[in-house]
Amino acid sequence: MEFLIDLVVSGETKILLLVADGLGGLQRNGKTELEIAKTPNLDALAAKSSLGLTTPVDVGITPGSGPAHLALFGYDPLEYEIGRGVLEALGIDYPLKRGDVAARGNFAAIKDGVIIDRRAGRISTQENKRICKRLSAEISEIEDVAIHIRPGKGHRFVLVLDGEGLSHELSESDPQKEGSPPAVIKPLASDAGKTARIVNRFIIQAQEMLQTEERANSLLLRGFASLPDLIPFPERFGLAAGAIATYPMYRGLARLVGMQVLETGSTWEEELSTLGKNRKGFDYFFVHFKEIDAAGEDGNFKKKVQLIERFDGLLPRLLKLNFDVVAITSDHSTPAMLESHSWHPNPFLLYAPQTARTEGESGFSERRCARGVLGHFNSLDVMPILLAHARRLKKFGA
Amino acid sequence: MEFLIDLVVSGETKILLLVADGLGGLQRNGKTELEIAKTPNLDALAAKSSLGLTTPVDVGITPGSGPAHLALFGYDPLEYEIGRGVLEALGIDYPLKRGDVAARGNFAAIKDGVIIDRRAGRISTQENKRICKRLSAEISEIEDVAIHIRPGKGHRFVLVLDGEGLSHELSESDPQKEGSPPAVIKPLASDAGKTARIVNRFIIQAQEMLQTEERANSLLLRGFASLPDLIPFPERFGLAAGAIATYPMYRGLARLVGMQVLETGSTWEEELSTLGKNRKGFDYFFVHFKEIDAAGEDGNFKKKVQLIERFDGLLPRLLKLNFDVVAITSDHSTPAMLESHSWHPNPFLLYAPQTARTEGESGFSERRCARGVLGHFNSLDVMPILLAHARRLKKFGA
Repeated sequence: MEFLIDLVVSGETKILLLVADGLGGLQRNGKTELEIAKTPNLDALAAKSSLGLTTPVDVGITPGSGPAHLALFGYDPLEYEIGRGVLEALGIDYPLKRGDVAARGNFAAIKDGVIIDRRAGRISTQENKRICKRLSAEISEIEDVAIHIRPGKGHRFVLVLDGEGLSHELSESDPQKEGSPPAVIKPLASDAGKTARIVNRFIIQAQEMLQTEERANSLLLRGFASLPDLIPFPERFGLAAGAIATYPMYRGLARLVGMQVLETGSTWEEELSTLGKNRKGFDYFFVHFKEIDAAGEDGNFKKKVQLIERFDGLLPRLLKLNFDVVAITSDHSTPAMLESHSWHPNPFLLYAPQTARTEGESGFSERRCARGVLGHFNSLDVMPILLAHARRLKKFGA
Repeated sequence: MEFLIDLVVSGETKILLLVADGLGGLQRNGKTELEIAKTPNLDALAAKSSLGLTTPVDVGITPGSGPAHLALFGYDPLEYEIGRGVLEALGIDYPLKRGDVAARGNFAAIKDGVIIDRRAGRISTQENKRICKRLSAEISEIEDVAIHIRPGKGHRFVLVLDGEGLSHELSESDPQKEGSPPAVIKPLASDAGKTARIVNRFIIQAQEMLQTEERANSLLLRGFASLPDLIPFPERFGLAAGAIATYPMYRGLARLVGMQVLETGSTWEEELSTLGKNRKGFDYFFVHFKEIDAAGEDGNFKKKVQLIERFDGLLPRLLKLNFDVVAITSDHSTPAMLESHSWHPNPFLLYAPQTARTEGESGFSERRCARGVLGHFNSLDVMPILLAHARRLKKFGA
């Protein structure tokens, strides 16, 4: 990838990456969600486009949303790891900075020094918020490090340490089972002593305050992580990049690689409005549509089909925005039949009227993509393909 | 690749790699050059062959001819770089040796110490020849290093240093803009001091002599380069290799990897005659047809179609030569619609009647190749495929 960066040139062309999360599926009675769905617009567009199938991380590997998106953004997910703490922080829209250390926290119930409930009886989000507010009021700084405690859903919270000389190379306090005491945090690298000391002090102080709580009288920390050290997307690819997503985690992933996250509403239509309004200001847009994935996760084949049809209905509006290069794909497949993310490659459509070899035949599905002119490739190759078709790469060698 | 070399065995089989430079294209009104062209012979051959698409360097990367051919010859173009100076020397058929240092030169116009025209008013090739002759007569050696000055086209020339202990790790004298003085050459590696000293002395001596020239009263040097240090093709692959090409650069690229370059005429027919005559003497032939690429570069869709048809007409004659393994492909695509090399993968046809899985269906085009039995692969895999079908690779492991 690094030699590619040296080939990047500037240009006037505009690129759109539309991620229909979890679009790829698996057949029921012989047909996949995408094959059952009536998608006249996608089918017609396919004839004028190149099709292919992308592998998010590696063959047979089911990726989380983090690595799957990193690959689409041109960052090797095997090189740039996103720790659990970072992912949780992104998931609540926390503006994590480089150097911060984030951890995932659980409120827990403890008795006689051992954990009796790792989820504190699944306290409500409301109660969680109240407790986090209490803790935040009392513990805002330890030594020279600012402490941020933010509620998540149910018993979950995020702890962020914000200061100089921190390290995420720490053991976890969560023993991952009941009947054991919380573990003391240990430094796992020579420069992690200070962070371990601060976190342990935080745990002791917090524990003391929580004694008065009925259920959530303790807490557990795991997944200490920092933002990966990467060259920001705009610098790496010479593209002013805007991100449009309704879910915090995807906004967070875009922010993490250095894209500018745009304010938008909660529907696909509003996302497209945001895209149209901001078209002039950016060279590249990442637009994320979440709901298809959620239907897949729920195992709701029929709803996934309906959402794909609704997506198809928005296509004319999207194409009217006249991007030079449009990619429509998913980050990973989410077959309703499996009720989860899967390792199956993603359908990929590239519409670049000036430069793309066309299929010359209508129809958009996993099977059609498997025989497409782009063949099978890695999600990590999506950025080189988009840049090439946007005429933003110069020749390699003479 | 290196484990493959250990598997190479000798044989009696004969391999032909025919590079129809720039063959791959892009549709105009829905059809590519190759799809428009009437190619009954290629179409029929495709049914008895394996088809595929090859990526020269990497997905999305538009390669120069150098890296694109290196890959076809089995040398990773990301590992073996061919500098500009080497390429210029190859382009004028200069017999560069390992250890020589070559640079691209421009004659330029200078006034009051600053460059006023980097191309010396685009002097004629005739005038260039005269000036190079003058310089050569006066400057043939500096210290213990032989100096060779060879004219190119227009204002371009090639400087070659031929001696012991030379290095191409030098800065350039060409500031790449007018209004600046030529830069002094600096060594960029600890062992490049001698070469820098000699080149700077050459510049001073040449400059003095050029004072009497009307327009070309100065010169600029850039792209210092040496031949890459590689295991010669015949040794690496156990193949006596002959190269047939009408353009100097392709002869040079073949010579660079250690192929024997055969004398030939200037037409495809003459190239095929040369091939027939020399068939017995070699195990492997690289035959290069240039003109299709030139039509693509000119944006002449119709001419590219005509040339493809002419190429098709020669196929029966080529097949009569009875090679065991024939590959027909391009080094890179040159779509007439883009008027340049492109990143689009190359159509690849493998005819090996004893060993290749066949398509069983006629037709040769980018789209057909995209669905071919060979799938999508890298040009660097062409040599292993040719060797395998020539039965020149033994089993790996037991």
